Amino acid sequence: MPSMNPALVVLSGGQDSTTCLYWALNRFGAGQVEAITFDYGQRHRIELDCAARIAARAGVPHVVLPIDTFAALGGSALTDPGIAVQAGVDAQTQLPATFVPGRNLIFLTFAAAFAYPRGIHDLVTGVAQTDYSGYPDCRQTTLQVLEQAIRLGMEYEITIHTPLMFKSKAETVWMARDLGVLPALADSHTCYNGLQPPCGVCPACQLRAKGFAEAGIPDPLLERFREPAP
Amino acid sequence: MPSMNPALVVLSGGQDSTTCLYWALNRFGAGQVEAITFDYGQRHRIELDCAARIAARAGVPHVVLPIDTFAALGGSALTDPGIAVQAGVDAQTQLPATFVPGRNLIFLTFAAAFAYPRGIHDLVTGVAQTDYSGYPDCRQTTLQVLEQAIRLGMEYEITIHTPLMFKSKAETVWMARDLGVLPALADSHTCYNGLQPPCGVCPACQLRAKGFAEAGIPDPLLERFREPAP
Repeated sequence: MPSMNPALVVLSGGQDSTTCLYWALNRFGAGQVEAITFDYGQRHRIELDCAARIAARAGVPHVVLPIDTFAALGGSALTDPGIAVQAGVDAQTQLPATFVPGRNLIFLTFAAAFAYPRGIHDLVTGVAQTDYSGYPDCRQTTLQVLEQAIRLGMEYEITIHTPLMFKSKAETVWMARDLGVLPALADSHTCYNGLQPPCGVCPACQLRAKGFAEAGIPDPLLERFREPAP
Repeated sequence: MPSMNPALVVLSGGQDSTTCLYWALNRFGAGQVEAITFDYGQRHRIELDCAARIAARAGVPHVVLPIDTFAALGGSALTDPGIAVQAGVDAQTQLPATFVPGRNLIFLTFAAAFAYPRGIHDLVTGVAQTDYSGYPDCRQTTLQVLEQAIRLGMEYEITIHTPLMFKSKAETVWMARDLGVLPALADSHTCYNGLQPPCGVCPACQLRAKGFAEAGIPDPLLERFREPAP
């Protein structure tokens, strides 16, 4: 019997949120988990396809919420085709060129607004402070204060779970292995350049490869493309 | 010469945010203020027209940012034409039927995301804890914690100014008079039913009327419609 109060996983279609989806299934139980993905004008629609495929494979209800505001705000390489994705930080702001100011604040607040009328009290997000790519909205302190702001602002008990917060990329890969997520990771998307097979040279691909290498486990996504044609 | 770091007023087109716009002009100076309005699928487009007219009258640059997410979330009388606007609270949630969960959290976070690349550090919002209509995201504690979440999440110094926080509606009217806002308030919109002249019976109209009555000042908006035809 489905619970009235499932947990809600913010699912980007990437490696980390996919791992968190299975963490949530393990923690809260099958039938107790839903997934939400934000269509915020990301450059690569493939992320949305991956998220849908991953949710379907996990047997989890999946909703896609639109956010047109980031594209209107402009100025980030992740939504603005006019800005090239580069490694390193912006000289002026000292933040990565892929930084969307406040993106996780917005995602989690909208996730809470979605959760509120449905009686959902548990949000799960794959952000990590280790290897956090320079995004200040991925830090534990930020999310703890945001959780408090949401609780006060909605008068509603919300808990933001961050199972990967202090894990290295290698530890996240081991966690994925232990949770049986590896097959699903073949569907996950990481490449900033939106390529399948992944480009292998963008910062996201390199960080992912480093994690699997350090974990001593082959990346199921790369294995998928290495399979010989029949 | 325009400053590089003006203040940004969240302008809904209502009485309170209009008063705050003039508060900001008084506090930060002419040429030091910009206004932002969110087009979030509010039932009454007249609010957007009012905001534009008010900004133009004040000589303030004005931007309208779209947010399509609330309409997709559904479930609020302010965005969902299927839900009637009623006085009083929802029996289940004990919150007003017009409550959009987290609306001010989202507005202020997006305002900060707009401010960030422009070097704007001061946000101004017309929320008030007195007469706050039951919205928990209008309370000072909520906004203080949100301010901290934004500062941490963007690594950026943002100050949220709430000049009306502890003012009664009457005190807000006196403040408007002292700042010379009364003529501009003839353009402001309050009525939940989107009517001009205002319906006079919805909770928003009644709260506005109570404030002007207690202040002993006629409402310029009503005066406008009382003028005899030439």
